[in-house]
Amino acid sequence: MKRRVFFLSDHTGLTVEAMGRALLSQFEQLEFQARRWPFLDSPDKVSAAAARIKQLSAGDQARPLVFSSFVDSDSRKRLDDSGALVLDFFASYTGVLEQELHAGVCATTGMQHGIGQREHYDARIRAVNFALANDDGGAGRDYAAADRVLLGVSRSGKTPTCLYLGMQFGILAANYPITDDDLQRDWNQLPVLDFRDKLFGLTINPVQLQRIRQERRPGSVYASLPQCRHEVAETEALFQRFRIPYADTTAMSVEEIAASILHQGGLESRVGC
Amino acid sequence: MKRRVFFLSDHTGLTVEAMGRALLSQFEQLEFQARRWPFLDSPDKVSAAAARIKQLSAGDQARPLVFSSFVDSDSRKRLDDSGALVLDFFASYTGVLEQELHAGVCATTGMQHGIGQREHYDARIRAVNFALANDDGGAGRDYAAADRVLLGVSRSGKTPTCLYLGMQFGILAANYPITDDDLQRDWNQLPVLDFRDKLFGLTINPVQLQRIRQERRPGSVYASLPQCRHEVAETEALFQRFRIPYADTTAMSVEEIAASILHQGGLESRVGC
Repeated sequence: MKRRVFFLSDHTGLTVEAMGRALLSQFEQLEFQARRWPFLDSPDKVSAAAARIKQLSAGDQARPLVFSSFVDSDSRKRLDDSGALVLDFFASYTGVLEQELHAGVCATTGMQHGIGQREHYDARIRAVNFALANDDGGAGRDYAAADRVLLGVSRSGKTPTCLYLGMQFGILAANYPITDDDLQRDWNQLPVLDFRDKLFGLTINPVQLQRIRQERRPGSVYASLPQCRHEVAETEALFQRFRIPYADTTAMSVEEIAASILHQGGLESRVGC
Repeated sequence: MKRRVFFLSDHTGLTVEAMGRALLSQFEQLEFQARRWPFLDSPDKVSAAAARIKQLSAGDQARPLVFSSFVDSDSRKRLDDSGALVLDFFASYTGVLEQELHAGVCATTGMQHGIGQREHYDARIRAVNFALANDDGGAGRDYAAADRVLLGVSRSGKTPTCLYLGMQFGILAANYPITDDDLQRDWNQLPVLDFRDKLFGLTINPVQLQRIRQERRPGSVYASLPQCRHEVAETEALFQRFRIPYADTTAMSVEEIAASILHQGGLESRVGC
């Protein structure tokens, strides 16, 4: 029997869901059945949600869990009728923070992604467009303007990582796909090495790479295990020879790869507080 | 004097930063100076961070704030020496959850994005690739396979939203750019209307649209205010005539747009617990 979990928010609910999942992931041995209900931006909507939670979990062996982040205390109160164990992130901390900061909260919902963030929005969109324009095969890649240039064999995760770096941090990330031709020429002649201080390499387990490439071009040399092994081994040798920092992405999420790249290079997000 | 804030984590720190910023955004009248220090995955690294925080804030008028999420209680203890007000999200809730779930936490760092999530990773990458392949101007867009097809004029935010829907939720999102040619023909003939139940429209304030287009093609008809007004008005008329749900993205973040699209259509994320 999976324990029922709800992530409730007056806004997108993305943050409360991420934090709730992080907490639940510590209980590896248990299984959960989770849903996110966003945009509950009035006490009446919260009451309706509470009634629905009560109804859905009526036959459950254990009460459901609710993770929430309601700015409005009246909304939080409405959850008392849900029959759930309610953990509200805002309720737990706003009091402490009010005391520490000698200031009251402005009970406006959805401040965290609001209209005041226009420059951040623009910076992020610009960075996503930069990643798209400077992706694999893009003509005239603008490495000079990039904050980071990712290197790696085809299907090692460069494109999603560049997009994530742009979307989340406003970082301008280009990428350079290392081809078999590159590996066979004199490495000193690789033009991308002119940007040594911006380079970051991605590598991947050859078996995993083969699996991914098989989906794309089944039965091709490109997707064969010997080819994958060869490309990965040579690429890692290249990273080592030129002291290019790199990460093995085999067991990493896009978030982890992106955060590692920032951390390794001491780069700061361009979209802060 | 901006209050100093640190987001500390044994892992990427993205979740603790998002939650910390959401809390601080309620204190609109105050200014903060925030940094994220990720990958503090041993008590010694945490001690070093605590010492650095103490040093940096030595001359400050008020103690710094630390938001953290350490699975390991020894690491949490090391923060006592930082001189900061420490709010640890895991410390506050794991006890309550252990009691409720009759289970102990497995003190493994970084579970939330870990290796067990391989299918989720694959689903997300597949969805990002789908968004790229089915973006503006992509030949042979596969609307039949899409979960959602976004409609809107050029520069209304379709591409970043599709990428975000893929990256965050594993949702297959394609897009159809509405051109002036489309607006001048018989709307009933628009092929994308064959996918009525998947459509979602994006609109935008014409002045904002003009500003964005000016950056791209300064002085062009495309970027002129009359042209922007015309395209936006006609597109909104089209959405209304065919009862296509739509959102005005002018003051919305990518997260908000994406969450609204899911919510409106009752779509669930493909990458859950």
